[in-house]
Amino acid sequence: MKPTATKKDVQQVIRLIKAAGLRADVSSGRFQTVIGIVGDEKKINFDQIKSLTGVYDVNRIQVPYRLMSRSYISHDIVVKVGDVSIGGNEEPVIIAGPCSIESYEQMFRIAKKVKEAGCHILRGGAYKPRTSVHSFQGLGLDGLKHLHNVGKDLGIPTVSEVRSEFDVEMVAKYCDMLQIGARNMYNQDLIEAAAKQGKPILFKRGFSAQIDEYLSFAERIVANGNKKLVLCERGIMPLGGSFKSQTRFTLDLNAIPVLRKETPFPVIVDPSHGTGRKDLIIPMSRSSIAAGAHGLMIEVHDRPQEALSDANQALAPEDLTKIIMISKLIHQTIAQSEVPFSGDISNGASHDH
Amino acid sequence: MKPTATKKDVQQVIRLIKAAGLRADVSSGRFQTVIGIVGDEKKINFDQIKSLTGVYDVNRIQVPYRLMSRSYISHDIVVKVGDVSIGGNEEPVIIAGPCSIESYEQMFRIAKKVKEAGCHILRGGAYKPRTSVHSFQGLGLDGLKHLHNVGKDLGIPTVSEVRSEFDVEMVAKYCDMLQIGARNMYNQDLIEAAAKQGKPILFKRGFSAQIDEYLSFAERIVANGNKKLVLCERGIMPLGGSFKSQTRFTLDLNAIPVLRKETPFPVIVDPSHGTGRKDLIIPMSRSSIAAGAHGLMIEVHDRPQEALSDANQALAPEDLTKIIMISKLIHQTIAQSEVPFSGDISNGASHDH
Amino acid sequence: MKPTATKKDVQQVIRLIKAAGLRADVSSGRFQTVIGIVGDEKKINFDQIKSLTGVYDVNRIQVPYRLMSRSYISHDIVVKVGDVSIGGNEEPVIIAGPCSIESYEQMFRIAKKVKEAGCHILRGGAYKPRTSVHSFQGLGLDGLKHLHNVGKDLGIPTVSEVRSEFDVEMVAKYCDMLQIGARNMYNQDLIEAAAKQGKPILFKRGFSAQIDEYLSFAERIVANGNKKLVLCERGIMPLGGSFKSQTRFTLDLNAIPVLRKETPFPVIVDPSHGTGRKDLIIPMSRSSIAAGAHGLMIEVHDRPQEALSDANQALAPEDLTKIIMISKLIHQTIAQSEVPFSGDISNGASHDH
Amino acid sequence: MKPTATKKDVQQVIRLIKAAGLRADVSSGRFQTVIGIVGDEKKINFDQIKSLTGVYDVNRIQVPYRLMSRSYISHDIVVKVGDVSIGGNEEPVIIAGPCSIESYEQMFRIAKKVKEAGCHILRGGAYKPRTSVHSFQGLGLDGLKHLHNVGKDLGIPTVSEVRSEFDVEMVAKYCDMLQIGARNMYNQDLIEAAAKQGKPILFKRGFSAQIDEYLSFAERIVANGNKKLVLCERGIMPLGGSFKSQTRFTLDLNAIPVLRKETPFPVIVDPSHGTGRKDLIIPMSRSSIAAGAHGLMIEVHDRPQEALSDANQALAPEDLTKIIMISKLIHQTIAQSEVPFSGDISNGASHDH
Repeated sequence: MKPTATKKDVQQVIRLIKAAGLRADVSSGRFQTVIGIVGDEKKINFDQIKSLTGVYDVNRIQVPYRLMSRSYISHDIVVKVGDVSIGGNEEPVIIAGPCSIESYEQMFRIAKKVKEAGCHILRGGAYKPRTSVHSFQGLGLDGLKHLHNVGKDLGIPTVSEVRSEFDVEMVAKYCDMLQIGARNMYNQDLIEAAAKQGKPILFKRGFSAQIDEYLSFAERIVANGNKKLVLCERGIMPLGGSFKSQTRFTLDLNAIPVLRKETPFPVIVDPSHGTGRKDLIIPMSRSSIAAGAHGLMIEVHDRPQEALSDANQALAPEDLTKIIMISKLIHQTIAQSEVPFSGDISNGASHDH
Repeated sequence: MKPTATKKDVQQVIRLIKAAGLRADVSSGRFQTVIGIVGDEKKINFDQIKSLTGVYDVNRIQVPYRLMSRSYISHDIVVKVGDVSIGGNEEPVIIAGPCSIESYEQMFRIAKKVKEAGCHILRGGAYKPRTSVHSFQGLGLDGLKHLHNVGKDLGIPTVSEVRSEFDVEMVAKYCDMLQIGARNMYNQDLIEAAAKQGKPILFKRGFSAQIDEYLSFAERIVANGNKKLVLCERGIMPLGGSFKSQTRFTLDLNAIPVLRKETPFPVIVDPSHGTGRKDLIIPMSRSSIAAGAHGLMIEVHDRPQEALSDANQALAPEDLTKIIMISKLIHQTIAQSEVPFSGDISNGASHDH
Repeated sequence: MKPTATKKDVQQVIRLIKAAGLRADVSSGRFQTVIGIVGDEKKINFDQIKSLTGVYDVNRIQVPYRLMSRSYISHDIVVKVGDVSIGGNEEPVIIAGPCSIESYEQMFRIAKKVKEAGCHILRGGAYKPRTSVHSFQGLGLDGLKHLHNVGKDLGIPTVSEVRSEFDVEMVAKYCDMLQIGARNMYNQDLIEAAAKQGKPILFKRGFSAQIDEYLSFAERIVANGNKKLVLCERGIMPLGGSFKSQTRFTLDLNAIPVLRKETPFPVIVDPSHGTGRKDLIIPMSRSSIAAGAHGLMIEVHDRPQEALSDANQALAPEDLTKIIMISKLIHQTIAQSEVPFSGDISNGASHDH
Repeated sequence: MKPTATKKDVQQVIRLIKAAGLRADVSSGRFQTVIGIVGDEKKINFDQIKSLTGVYDVNRIQVPYRLMSRSYISHDIVVKVGDVSIGGNEEPVIIAGPCSIESYEQMFRIAKKVKEAGCHILRGGAYKPRTSVHSFQGLGLDGLKHLHNVGKDLGIPTVSEVRSEFDVEMVAKYCDMLQIGARNMYNQDLIEAAAKQGKPILFKRGFSAQIDEYLSFAERIVANGNKKLVLCERGIMPLGGSFKSQTRFTLDLNAIPVLRKETPFPVIVDPSHGTGRKDLIIPMSRSSIAAGAHGLMIEVHDRPQEALSDANQALAPEDLTKIIMISKLIHQTIAQSEVPFSGDISNGASHDH
């Protein structure tokens, strides 16, 4: 819309979009309002829209993640989880905690340590996605309550994974942020149900998904009116063959600058699942921040030998302190350099409406 | 259990398993009853079970798909969908129909043609898994009803995909078989909800899943008491790089003899999605049957230019006739040869209890 | 060229191509002569060529394997190795023998058995490509001589792998066919050196190569004037991850109909290396022939426990007999059906000049 | 050997190794001499060696890259190219220059700019590995001479790729370092021929090779007595499928800490080929250094529109200046932190003899 467009002008455009059986996504900036079309845009007459009062221009966005593209929203989006800000030029945000919630005591003990280490958001799994029907499946609702109580008692926001459409409401009730795991990246019904809760969403990339495919599914969150979206790289399938891969997954750091260039949403990295190896978490954390990641998600356990899942990739709390320290230093070094993060990503992209 | 074990002996074993917080899966053969343990078997004392009256032997199955392994069930399982038998030495079963159900008329028209071509089960999608939120998502419940009515009117059993946990009951109500698609292979809650409906399940392999991983998720169906399971190879992710893959997926026919060797459940192939190319469906159908597939699932549309999805991989009904004819011929040629299908799979495997 | 073009007309076109610093490939058919350009065709003026006497038309072939494309040569090419014919509608050709040549005695003993089983060409490795510098590297020249003598003594043509540019002449001197292995698919200097020997070339697909990339390297053989080329699918890299692949490689049978459609050269399959598992060779051999393969290459050893390499994928001679029998039966069944092999590949392709 | 072992003691061990038909690799440190066995160690009696005078202990190294493992050589190796030191705690080394050498003038012009930017070693391709026989194949010997002369005139060491065994001597004559490209990682004869020249080797990882496979081939260089080895990560095959990968290859930074942990040899990264995208080179360079890379190899062209190959991934010289600056800053930041590079890699590894 033109900067001079009235509220009535905007309403008229929305009406026309709805009349075609489509939905409208309205972004109101300080100077300008931009309206995105949700659905099959072939159903609408672009010339007719262009002729309406107050319309500045009508553009067809070529990428399949229309509402998430830099062409639609040019400025970096900062997502708030509790009072923590993720994205833009903010310092790296650290999400840490155990793989599985095992009890209030275990959760409190670890949470206290990670908070002292400088961690911003507490993670813990209540509904665990598991390969085998024969192993520990998580504490479910009880786990959520423990996480919620520990978060409240220590004053730290929380995030937990939502696995089933039936759990969406409960996770949204007890947590500050909903995580959708890599295995559910293609689960469009779960994605939409989670988005509708209105809470921030941590949406992990599937381990065999291309960036464009990943963003097409993330688009479902935004198309359901939820822009509190944090993207997360967590490793892609390695090649197999005669030799075994040294890492469980290949953490794909190329994804960081690509995602930052393609969309304005914050991007974090999970080096714990992304490598599956405790001894690689420190170097890959440094590497992630240097690539431009807005934060890290790290599995921490103070008694790994007692952990009910993923023990061999859980870091000790004291190592988390080191990661947080070096992450901040690298972030500052780059931010103060001649080529800060924004310098990488503008190259070749046209970010204006 | 020993052949002489009484019903009471069996009950006692089951009681002990339940007392450990586990579930029991009971297979009663003509000569022998076999009891499988569902859950973490470390919780139970094997020596104690072994000492019970009527117990013949206690074995730990090493593979993660315990209830599906040939060590647990040695003979081929034949799954019935309506009056169609899939598996064992039965002739190849053909499942065909359009990608999406678009109307009763479209469905009836195509169903009539595929039935005349010799097709055994009718397929059609009501809840379509789609990458983009901006494209056609399927007719939903109306589509299911059309499929159901066409199936009834033409006397042919039907299968349709279930995508959301919320749809499971409806699909089970209107269809003879529930399909779980490749993108939902890791969706454990959906798998369990579908299994509990008790209807036959067509369970597709995820496109980046190893065989062992695939069977570990299939195990959830059997662990929920549903042995009407049909496995389906539908192509795995190709490598990318500077050159584009000639096929959308790599149909992995190695999977056929491997799956037949590892489990007694029937295995079919979907060459339509597995290649994404109409011109490869005939050769890959032949190749699938020669590898030992128990059937084929093929997308057919009589007016591909009008199809609302996947038009470029839909075969014409007249080509389906040819596939059915050559599939039968190849199946017979091999069945009557010196090395029939069973000859491939015994090599090196020990299938006895 | 026009059917009426004279030899002089053809010479004039060749002269013009050479004047531009390019090479000319001349295909003289019964009715028509076709001239291909080897090199960067931007250097030449197509209009000028078109204006020459006797020129019928000038076409730019879009694929990077210009001289191998069906647009350039439409009819199937049959390659002769000794008096064995591979390709077109010929019966499946079987190449078999041990992985490594170990002695004249070992080679003679196995060769006799595979010949009796119905094998057409004898294989054996003298220069073994090996991952580890610490293991057996092959007998070298002595091995070649053993293979040559056994071939002569039993009257069966031979093939052996050429690994180094320095060995090319020796392998060409002692064998009827030169094999270029998967690991050397990108070794352009070796490919060209081998091609120049003028003997038939068995050129294996690299295990991470796309079809188009594979054919671009095969094009180097043809561009060096050698059209005695046999393509060979031998498995591509499987995905890795938490679960180990059941097969060492993924034998990619989709490649068979794709290669047959794209080029007129014969295509064979190596199920021994392609799966790495003895128990999959029979079903995958059947599956290959049903997909349209012109032949099979199979590792056979009569005393696998004594083999110096690849023992666990070597088949017993008696199983080879079974494969040859069923391969012929499947080939005949399809050849006599309503959709013979040629029927698969015409669909959608335009094969005329 | 014991610290007190005499030269004669060492000789006796070597004699025994040679008597078994194997080769000995001798590493003499300040305090201790270590002797490695090249070849199949099953041929030798370990107990017999252990009983010799001066022998401290006999260990079997489990990994296939015995002579390159940290168990064999625990301290970091620094490789000298001219007077440039790569490895250990040295500052990041930058190798830069154009993809192809096109003329003395082009080479000199670019070399001058990259040297001014702070680049340490000059690169340029004379023998280009090319997919298509129809495109520019490099200047060959003339190119090598241009590179040599420019290096001499500007006082900067040079590196160029060796593609054919026949070119090895020439490249070694004119360059300070020989590069073996990704496509030749499996070319064992080329590797050995290059190693024998005695000059430093830049050995790139193949794009579908696992780390263990890569090191097994690198082992051939060391087994031929050449320890002037620099490893190089340059991207692995991305997955394909319906969506195109955003990068030509997936630069695998996980490889950096893994390689540094497994071997003492220096590791550099080539973000130009590894991503294939100019706009990703700056962030991925930062990311590589933060992961622990000892250097970077970057394609630079001052007139990309005129480049004869790989124009779209060549960086401008002014951007190289920025990369060198930020690389040093990140390297210093980490080196001075509480967890310097060595801290990452000791975890869980036992590096002592």
